[in-house]
Amino acid sequence: MKTIFRLFAVLLAIGLLAMTMAKPTRVVFFGDSITQAGVKPGGYIDRLKSMLPAGQFDLIGAGIGGNKIYDLYLRMDDDVIAQKPDVVVIWVGVNDVWHKASSGTGTDPDKFIRFYEAVIKKLQAANTRIVLCTPAAIGEKTDMTNQQDGDLNQYSQFIRNLAKEHNLPLVDLRKAFLEYDLKNNPENKDKGILTTDRVHLNDAGNQFVAEQMQKVLTSLK
Amino acid sequence: MKTIFRLFAVLLAIGLLAMTMAKPTRVVFFGDSITQAGVKPGGYIDRLKSMLPAGQFDLIGAGIGGNKIYDLYLRMDDDVIAQKPDVVVIWVGVNDVWHKASSGTGTDPDKFIRFYEAVIKKLQAANTRIVLCTPAAIGEKTDMTNQQDGDLNQYSQFIRNLAKEHNLPLVDLRKAFLEYDLKNNPENKDKGILTTDRVHLNDAGNQFVAEQMQKVLTSLK
Amino acid sequence: MKTIFRLFAVLLAIGLLAMTMAKPTRVVFFGDSITQAGVKPGGYIDRLKSMLPAGQFDLIGAGIGGNKIYDLYLRMDDDVIAQKPDVVVIWVGVNDVWHKASSGTGTDPDKFIRFYEAVIKKLQAANTRIVLCTPAAIGEKTDMTNQQDGDLNQYSQFIRNLAKEHNLPLVDLRKAFLEYDLKNNPENKDKGILTTDRVHLNDAGNQFVAEQMQKVLTSLK
Amino acid sequence: MKTIFRLFAVLLAIGLLAMTMAKPTRVVFFGDSITQAGVKPGGYIDRLKSMLPAGQFDLIGAGIGGNKIYDLYLRMDDDVIAQKPDVVVIWVGVNDVWHKASSGTGTDPDKFIRFYEAVIKKLQAANTRIVLCTPAAIGEKTDMTNQQDGDLNQYSQFIRNLAKEHNLPLVDLRKAFLEYDLKNNPENKDKGILTTDRVHLNDAGNQFVAEQMQKVLTSLK
Repeated sequence: MKTIFRLFAVLLAIGLLAMTMAKPTRVVFFGDSITQAGVKPGGYIDRLKSMLPAGQFDLIGAGIGGNKIYDLYLRMDDDVIAQKPDVVVIWVGVNDVWHKASSGTGTDPDKFIRFYEAVIKKLQAANTRIVLCTPAAIGEKTDMTNQQDGDLNQYSQFIRNLAKEHNLPLVDLRKAFLEYDLKNNPENKDKGILTTDRVHLNDAGNQFVAEQMQKVLTSLK
Repeated sequence: MKTIFRLFAVLLAIGLLAMTMAKPTRVVFFGDSITQAGVKPGGYIDRLKSMLPAGQFDLIGAGIGGNKIYDLYLRMDDDVIAQKPDVVVIWVGVNDVWHKASSGTGTDPDKFIRFYEAVIKKLQAANTRIVLCTPAAIGEKTDMTNQQDGDLNQYSQFIRNLAKEHNLPLVDLRKAFLEYDLKNNPENKDKGILTTDRVHLNDAGNQFVAEQMQKVLTSLK
Repeated sequence: MKTIFRLFAVLLAIGLLAMTMAKPTRVVFFGDSITQAGVKPGGYIDRLKSMLPAGQFDLIGAGIGGNKIYDLYLRMDDDVIAQKPDVVVIWVGVNDVWHKASSGTGTDPDKFIRFYEAVIKKLQAANTRIVLCTPAAIGEKTDMTNQQDGDLNQYSQFIRNLAKEHNLPLVDLRKAFLEYDLKNNPENKDKGILTTDRVHLNDAGNQFVAEQMQKVLTSLK
Repeated sequence: MKTIFRLFAVLLAIGLLAMTMAKPTRVVFFGDSITQAGVKPGGYIDRLKSMLPAGQFDLIGAGIGGNKIYDLYLRMDDDVIAQKPDVVVIWVGVNDVWHKASSGTGTDPDKFIRFYEAVIKKLQAANTRIVLCTPAAIGEKTDMTNQQDGDLNQYSQFIRNLAKEHNLPLVDLRKAFLEYDLKNNPENKDKGILTTDRVHLNDAGNQFVAEQMQKVLTSLK
């Protein structure tokens, strides 16, 4: 009898191990055009694939150009929760700020917070782990003279506060980009260090973001 | 035998009448600051109460100042569907257009349509009848020189198209206001005919909107 | 004696004729990118050259992309008055309206009028004849659903009022474009009839504007 | 003989003194609503009067609410040069930035610089000494999260560059306000330290600005 139990236990352990090995952590990157480009060869999600332990992560891009926080809310059932993710990385905010000036269709501060909270609440109800990111940059000048610096700092602060309140891991890309640019942008250029056009990532930018994401994803295990 | 049938028919009629009397049609007015003010004494919803057949309608205001279409989407579960309405009257659009100029936080045309469709879909899933309204005015000048006239016409057209596509009754307040002002605003003033401040209703405006709403609500029966 | 007088009269006539022939009317077209493109082959100013009586007009383009009314004011000494024009055709207004939405840097209505009056005043002090034009279009849809239609109508009305007050000839391009589009744009397209991109002139547009300008310039003689 | 020379020297000295006493330095403060309020009792110009050596300065306010750099250019002949000032203090920039968001009618960066240079050039041609000031604040939060901080920093930098290029004294109110707020605004409030409403000066603000102005004006002698 004992032998049979032992055998069963061993088989069970093997089975569980197999299941663990068979089921990598499913990560959805939920965002805007930066994330949409992230799945392309050389994009930050593409780079992450070879930077994470083999077989342990499934990385899925769910970025759509021009998206603001309320666009994420609208499409999260179809594009994120339907994917049954273990982890959702939310990276949004550039368009909420930028579109104020470029088309008069940015997002009010109070509504940014309200929709962000609604997204978090829905993801928590779907039992996923959540990682928040601050918007990196609209312009790379390091002396706080990029037009949207104040507003982008404000919205980044909203996200930092949400991370604290909800006890969620944060990738503070706003802070990381500024620190990187302070070291690597001595000429105070507005693009070309981590971005091609003040917003979207160049090769160095994709590599830099991939490294930041790698840290938080491996720390989740 | 005939007598029994007649008796049954009479009882049935009484029963149906009782049901009708016992269960007035529950109407939620879903909108922005104009609707928020509509429940106050003299407001269009308040006026409607005495203009509709006694006991046949329950009128509920669900307007919040500054709301745009995506705000309606965010709060519709709590504020509308939870009320188990028979009819929902959606009146929104002014802020989606206006806030472009006043704070840089209006709504893009494509997103206005997308969120509006999402609101309709959710209400239909909740088995409610839906009435659409076009945004009435941002300025009452009748020669199409109010700053937002073009954009407001555009968004009104979106709503007319949605009403057609989904076969929903429409209260075309944009059209009705312009016709009223063409008759009653010979001096081409930008406010004071149906509005106090180019947007919000004065007494005549509340009465006028109540009359438009009365028509559509009684026609639904 | 008589013979001498006759000879003198003939010589005088020849001299006057020579002066007339020697001194064509000098016209400066003062405006934005539409006028900047107008001097290119096929542009409206280029077309006008062959449409006006030979030798009677000197046509000079003074258009700079992105210009608003206050930009005209700033550069009018150098770019217009220094040219010693007989006639200045002012065609401006699109950017004053458009830039409100595209970069948050349009022109307030009261300031548009104030700067326009200052431009007129300075040109009158320089003894030039002045022709005003209304801004033609930002979008060619004919049902008043182009986003800026209301505002563009408003600024056009300002210019019509200025023409009346100062008793100046007006080329009402806003009105002319709408009438043309009502006939030639049955599908309610937003570009492609007189413009390439909702604002800048295609071949038909350049021809149409040249014809409008021809009328006013020949009527000035 | 010597006596006569001495007498002459004494008379000359008295005469020069009299001339000095008779002709105080005429200072025009040229700006927006902040300067318009500056002449009221308790305003920064009013305070300056008692803070400067008696009889040595004539202080004149030339501030108009809502003014941007191009408004100053438009009215400078009438409102400033006609006053025959010895010194003009230019303090402008808040509306050039702020109106982008509040009405879509701010000033493009390149045009801000161009008009500012035109104002300087005209004042120099009128032989006046010029003092430049940076715009102080739109919001007093000290962590660079006021919406317009980036843009206001950018326009302040333009003014600092202009001061350097033209070798003009600068009152760097942007820098001074931030330093003051870093010391006196530990709660990171957005108003109430030097401003009543994020932009306009409270009593402490008027006193603080008066002190900054006092320094530069006395150093000009």
